[in-house]
Amino acid sequence: MIPRYSRPDMAALWSPETRYRIWFEIEAHALDAMAALGVVPKESAEAVWGWWATNPAIDVERIDAIEAVTKHDVIAFLTWVAEEVGPQARFLHQGMTSSDVLDTCLAVQLKRAADLLIADLDALLDVLKRRAYEHKLTPTIGRSHGIHAEPVTFGLKLAQAYAEFARGRARLVAARDDVATCAISGAVGTFANIDPRIEAHVAEKMGLSIEPVSTQVIPRDRHAMFFATLGVIASSIERLATEVRHLQRTEVLEAEEYFAPGQKGSSAMPHKRNPVLTENLTGLARVVRSAVTPALENVALWHERDISHSSVERYIGPDATITLDFALARLTGVIDKLLVYPERMQKNLDRMGGLVHSQRVLLALTQAGASREDSYRLVQRNAMKVWESDGKLSLLDLLKADPEVTALLSPAELEEKFDLDYHLKHVDTIFDRVFGQ
Amino acid sequence: MIPRYSRPDMAALWSPETRYRIWFEIEAHALDAMAALGVVPKESAEAVWGWWATNPAIDVERIDAIEAVTKHDVIAFLTWVAEEVGPQARFLHQGMTSSDVLDTCLAVQLKRAADLLIADLDALLDVLKRRAYEHKLTPTIGRSHGIHAEPVTFGLKLAQAYAEFARGRARLVAARDDVATCAISGAVGTFANIDPRIEAHVAEKMGLSIEPVSTQVIPRDRHAMFFATLGVIASSIERLATEVRHLQRTEVLEAEEYFAPGQKGSSAMPHKRNPVLTENLTGLARVVRSAVTPALENVALWHERDISHSSVERYIGPDATITLDFALARLTGVIDKLLVYPERMQKNLDRMGGLVHSQRVLLALTQAGASREDSYRLVQRNAMKVWESDGKLSLLDLLKADPEVTALLSPAELEEKFDLDYHLKHVDTIFDRVFGQ
Amino acid sequence: MIPRYSRPDMAALWSPETRYRIWFEIEAHALDAMAALGVVPKESAEAVWGWWATNPAIDVERIDAIEAVTKHDVIAFLTWVAEEVGPQARFLHQGMTSSDVLDTCLAVQLKRAADLLIADLDALLDVLKRRAYEHKLTPTIGRSHGIHAEPVTFGLKLAQAYAEFARGRARLVAARDDVATCAISGAVGTFANIDPRIEAHVAEKMGLSIEPVSTQVIPRDRHAMFFATLGVIASSIERLATEVRHLQRTEVLEAEEYFAPGQKGSSAMPHKRNPVLTENLTGLARVVRSAVTPALENVALWHERDISHSSVERYIGPDATITLDFALARLTGVIDKLLVYPERMQKNLDRMGGLVHSQRVLLALTQAGASREDSYRLVQRNAMKVWESDGKLSLLDLLKADPEVTALLSPAELEEKFDLDYHLKHVDTIFDRVFGQ
Amino acid sequence: MIPRYSRPDMAALWSPETRYRIWFEIEAHALDAMAALGVVPKESAEAVWGWWATNPAIDVERIDAIEAVTKHDVIAFLTWVAEEVGPQARFLHQGMTSSDVLDTCLAVQLKRAADLLIADLDALLDVLKRRAYEHKLTPTIGRSHGIHAEPVTFGLKLAQAYAEFARGRARLVAARDDVATCAISGAVGTFANIDPRIEAHVAEKMGLSIEPVSTQVIPRDRHAMFFATLGVIASSIERLATEVRHLQRTEVLEAEEYFAPGQKGSSAMPHKRNPVLTENLTGLARVVRSAVTPALENVALWHERDISHSSVERYIGPDATITLDFALARLTGVIDKLLVYPERMQKNLDRMGGLVHSQRVLLALTQAGASREDSYRLVQRNAMKVWESDGKLSLLDLLKADPEVTALLSPAELEEKFDLDYHLKHVDTIFDRVFGQ
Repeated sequence: MIPRYSRPDMAALWSPETRYRIWFEIEAHALDAMAALGVVPKESAEAVWGWWATNPAIDVERIDAIEAVTKHDVIAFLTWVAEEVGPQARFLHQGMTSSDVLDTCLAVQLKRAADLLIADLDALLDVLKRRAYEHKLTPTIGRSHGIHAEPVTFGLKLAQAYAEFARGRARLVAARDDVATCAISGAVGTFANIDPRIEAHVAEKMGLSIEPVSTQVIPRDRHAMFFATLGVIASSIERLATEVRHLQRTEVLEAEEYFAPGQKGSSAMPHKRNPVLTENLTGLARVVRSAVTPALENVALWHERDISHSSVERYIGPDATITLDFALARLTGVIDKLLVYPERMQKNLDRMGGLVHSQRVLLALTQAGASREDSYRLVQRNAMKVWESDGKLSLLDLLKADPEVTALLSPAELEEKFDLDYHLKHVDTIFDRVFGQ
Repeated sequence: MIPRYSRPDMAALWSPETRYRIWFEIEAHALDAMAALGVVPKESAEAVWGWWATNPAIDVERIDAIEAVTKHDVIAFLTWVAEEVGPQARFLHQGMTSSDVLDTCLAVQLKRAADLLIADLDALLDVLKRRAYEHKLTPTIGRSHGIHAEPVTFGLKLAQAYAEFARGRARLVAARDDVATCAISGAVGTFANIDPRIEAHVAEKMGLSIEPVSTQVIPRDRHAMFFATLGVIASSIERLATEVRHLQRTEVLEAEEYFAPGQKGSSAMPHKRNPVLTENLTGLARVVRSAVTPALENVALWHERDISHSSVERYIGPDATITLDFALARLTGVIDKLLVYPERMQKNLDRMGGLVHSQRVLLALTQAGASREDSYRLVQRNAMKVWESDGKLSLLDLLKADPEVTALLSPAELEEKFDLDYHLKHVDTIFDRVFGQ
Repeated sequence: MIPRYSRPDMAALWSPETRYRIWFEIEAHALDAMAALGVVPKESAEAVWGWWATNPAIDVERIDAIEAVTKHDVIAFLTWVAEEVGPQARFLHQGMTSSDVLDTCLAVQLKRAADLLIADLDALLDVLKRRAYEHKLTPTIGRSHGIHAEPVTFGLKLAQAYAEFARGRARLVAARDDVATCAISGAVGTFANIDPRIEAHVAEKMGLSIEPVSTQVIPRDRHAMFFATLGVIASSIERLATEVRHLQRTEVLEAEEYFAPGQKGSSAMPHKRNPVLTENLTGLARVVRSAVTPALENVALWHERDISHSSVERYIGPDATITLDFALARLTGVIDKLLVYPERMQKNLDRMGGLVHSQRVLLALTQAGASREDSYRLVQRNAMKVWESDGKLSLLDLLKADPEVTALLSPAELEEKFDLDYHLKHVDTIFDRVFGQ
Repeated sequence: MIPRYSRPDMAALWSPETRYRIWFEIEAHALDAMAALGVVPKESAEAVWGWWATNPAIDVERIDAIEAVTKHDVIAFLTWVAEEVGPQARFLHQGMTSSDVLDTCLAVQLKRAADLLIADLDALLDVLKRRAYEHKLTPTIGRSHGIHAEPVTFGLKLAQAYAEFARGRARLVAARDDVATCAISGAVGTFANIDPRIEAHVAEKMGLSIEPVSTQVIPRDRHAMFFATLGVIASSIERLATEVRHLQRTEVLEAEEYFAPGQKGSSAMPHKRNPVLTENLTGLARVVRSAVTPALENVALWHERDISHSSVERYIGPDATITLDFALARLTGVIDKLLVYPERMQKNLDRMGGLVHSQRVLLALTQAGASREDSYRLVQRNAMKVWESDGKLSLLDLLKADPEVTALLSPAELEEKFDLDYHLKHVDTIFDRVFGQ
């Protein structure tokens, strides 16, 4: 966890205090269910909840000190609770195993993390939608291979991003539900010493579903799927960040990250206005993705469980969620305040001497009776001249002067092929598909 | 693609011939739709489909030869079709771009691959269910950290695997539907030269949904999610394969891969019977997983598209699906024919002098009034003696001889704590959860 | 292995025939050494080498057929040799284990692959050096964050690439030597049934060093290091390929992949000239890198060996080396024939109204007595105006008109700060460092 | 950085204070060199070093506060220094760019980190060597595929680990020297505003070599190689940790992690003694390895530099080195105090009824004139009976009773084949190879 790439709510979710609070809730709800089943005295549950009602501070240092002796975190926590509550606390954790607490706690944390990330995605989607509609009909050049292709609109670029992040949101909802299970099944998961109804009670109270078959641990394919889903979302962040970085290039400059007054782009070069936020997002995407492989390696635990997954999750649990939360918020800010330059987009559109309309001419020639191969040849030989002139020659002019072309298409027909609106006629269709009608 | 790790149906799906057949279908269905819209002559579509009805062989070598000149695969294919069909073929591909064909074809291939994999999973699930019920009540030791913990049944192990692969199946269905989209939207995806109704027609005919917003290419977050899902399933294969490898260890030998007569385990050591299939599966899982990172790196294409994803997909498309198909089938065979040794399981269960019952004694002492800490100490001091005797001492005997223990629990009460059935009483509950009632 | 991304020498190295030839050499050299030690009859070695001297064809199909029965590749091979040679062949492989043959063969293959790759790197380095000197003093804008920074030369860009690939070459030499070890140590590596002098003899004959301690297998940290090194080289390929892709962007167009007459850039847009080779290299880099993680996962074999590494190596051994060989050769071709446009570089250099000289002014102001903060402010306020004018205003003109600036620097002093040669004065120093004096 | 997996020296290396101290040294040494060249007043350097000689506390909070305004870390630091030193500090950083400081600082940190890790490796190698000699001739069963193969010694296992970590050490030395370069080359690396002799001076003072050609940044292939090397070492840790985990399995129990008095293995099962340290190491290995892919992705920066690498390095720089440092120290402790049980090793060796000697019999039969195929068949048919008896039958007895066998080998000859020392005769050879004579 790197403070500069953290936001408070997500960071708090992974604090020791939050973890201990969740542990308490799991243990105390389990105690309630035991008491209801007559396994433990009702007084025990009352004493424990009574203490909790006093809103006691979590003494993390004291718990750490006990753990330094016992070398076991859950026992340390229970020992501290017993110190606070008194002898009634001795019924806590009865028939349970540490993993019941740890794995269910992790499920709660990942579920809450997913909820924060879903809210982040909603905020990003809102901004993308607003700016997409703002630039729904702002023409700009579409580029394949970094080379001018045909016109699109800036709104279409954002609509694509919207659709992509909407998919990411749907996948995250699925991954959240997949990972949000509760296991209170005792050693090796047989419920030998704990009634399955206790698990059901805790699951309901903690907002989880029950784990159908645990083996002391909740199976790690659930977590692998969760982190893989974060990795896909991170890759979508990289895609949109890369788009902004490209648009801000000196030679392109169709859009720009907002540049705050007083900000310094470079200690050496005062003129610089750099896309540092989106470059940073590119790096953060790599960080989030780096959680995927260890999460996959965590699946194949030995027999009913080993603890190799635990250290991995201490890193990737906080790091992947905190970093993705930060990255989504940062990206939302970038898009929200993005400086967009329609004049420059138009200027770039025009700089290729009309080459972007070459396909329409190709089709028209075909429809006028030329073979596909001949049409291609006719267009290409004129297009190449324009290309080599660096946009100084005009494709339309050259075509009008090519007798093989004019034998098939009149000047007026040729001119009609260079109309920009032709390319924008289905923007509404696409927006309807993406945002609904 | 490694022939020894391939099965014919999946391999055929990735052959040049299959690819060209799918290309034809996409182009020809698009032509139908164009003809219906009056954009091209109906005769063109009739000519093309008429030729197809003659069931022509796909001349892969000829297409390759054309591509060697044009350096463009789709143009090479269309040129070949034109050679075969004649001039009516010139209306094919009108307003379309190569990516319309390539990306929609890949969607078809990945969808069909997913269907094969889902069938593989179904076969595996069947076998797991059968063998889980066969050994529903076969007692065996549950192990955490590779150390004997408490009794489970062999059926529970397989039920866990069933639940895990059932989750994998559900995720694969979602990933399949996510990746199965059709884009026929022309250069940079604006439908400038092709009516969106053509896309809708092709999508329906090819069993795909439409891509709401493509940018010449179908966005690669879909593919990333697909390969990530394969990676999670591969990790589950690794988990079950690792279980078998452990069970077959010389000292454990509770189960064994089927050993065919005439098979040689080692060229040097004739006595060897090695878990080579599950070791192989462990390696194949690594191979499938290795597709995940490049698939994630493929997401951030530049602007409306670049072609960096293409070479990656030429490898991982076939490799990940063919390898996973093979691995699932191999795993199904391993489980189907797995030699299971219940006597050995019982023998291993008994070898620790009753230590596996220590938790029940712990709980009983607590319930008899001892503090948790005292109970733990009483059990541990006797358990350690048994442990150090390598199972020669009996925990029950030692407890009966410990006055601090007998002050709390009578010999009869102690004996009752060493009953195996106690651990199996919720197996039905778990089976009901996993397999339904 | 994808044929279109393969070159013949490297592909041949991974053919079954080459593998069997190497197996033969290992077995036959070992037999020689056994005969020299008197362990086997000299006639046996003579018979085996005598057969080999007839240059027998390797009957891959026959060997495959035997393996289909024995399910063991080395036994199948030895059985075939025995069929060919007759009873004297029965002394082959005595005291050896399959891994002795397989692992030593893989070492030979990886060493030869490394030699091919080193030759590839030498060819690339030659081309980089030639073109670096060709453009040693061709001015071009240096860019940080994609934004114009200060002038560099195009030769410096290539010198950087040269230095990077020279490092890659040195690392590959080290990785080659690391992986090129011979193990002929028998089951579990104790030499119980085979004299260590046999290993020494085979090692010398095959051009390998001896493996100091093998455990039936050669330890896989060696292979992990090898594939990791390939992954780093692949990443350097991605870096240089990305540079070319950027330079070829329509708006930048300072360099361009060679475009063959008759080549079609796009089936739909005849005007396109796309950087498809370098985009392809970007994807191929991802493929090579994808071998790193499974190679790392292969290290932790169980006890003296398991066979999980084997299937992984069947994929990544050929794929990573063949792909990298192809990619290096393709990159060499791209750089060799790269179209470089110095006029366009100059035009781009000039387009920012002299902003690229802002740092020199900053330093001059500091040296003229202004505080660093004041200097920065003075430059930035003028630079921002130029920036916002899209290069229409001139920084030099604005500075000359700023009284706070002219209070510190005279017009002549300001003009001197806008001299391009100032930036190139240490190019020789850098070239001397990179290429030697 | 996870405190529980950190050790103080390595953690301190990555603290803000250490970073600022290194920044100061770089800037101040550069200032010295500038003063020596007459570029800045000598008084400036004297003032700066004079202040430093007062051993001033680094006011991290103040620097953070300035950065919150400037949004630029190096400028914030220099501003703070100027506040402390006064106007003479204005000559600091002249002609330099932030990357000169940041990248050279990172090189210093990675070099120092490597030195700590090399010391860790030395400590581990010492322990491995001591325990290897202690158990040089302690017989134990060698296992391939988890199945008993032939005898080895426990010392050989440790000698293998020694050789593997010695390779890791050599690779780390190379990676350290590779990454330890100094770049003080100014914006885009041309030395336009800074003399190359300044770089040479700083390099010497900081214990680095000069970067031959930087482009504002030090090329990231160096860092990629560094982290890849850490990943290989981590994988070797996983291998040895996995060995211990296997040996501690209940059924094997040939070795055991030291178990401290008062330690609790399980909150629920008091009898457990789990290999939790080596399981933890398995997970930590995954964490260190997870740095490799993002480090590889960092190589392809855009043009002369972008800043996408920076956020990645903020995570993996500390995480990979701190975690590996902790893991090496933990592994050293595990091996140092490992409880080794030679009696149990012997017992396991004997449990297979002599099957581990099967190869010797196979070879003897061949040498007595049987074909390899017949020999294999004769041994296998007896070995399979022993195998199926679970070690109750004796291979020697069965062979003595097999007339086809006794036709070739006398009882005395057979008995001689079951001698354990036969397998240990080359242990000295291997130890000499590994540890030197």
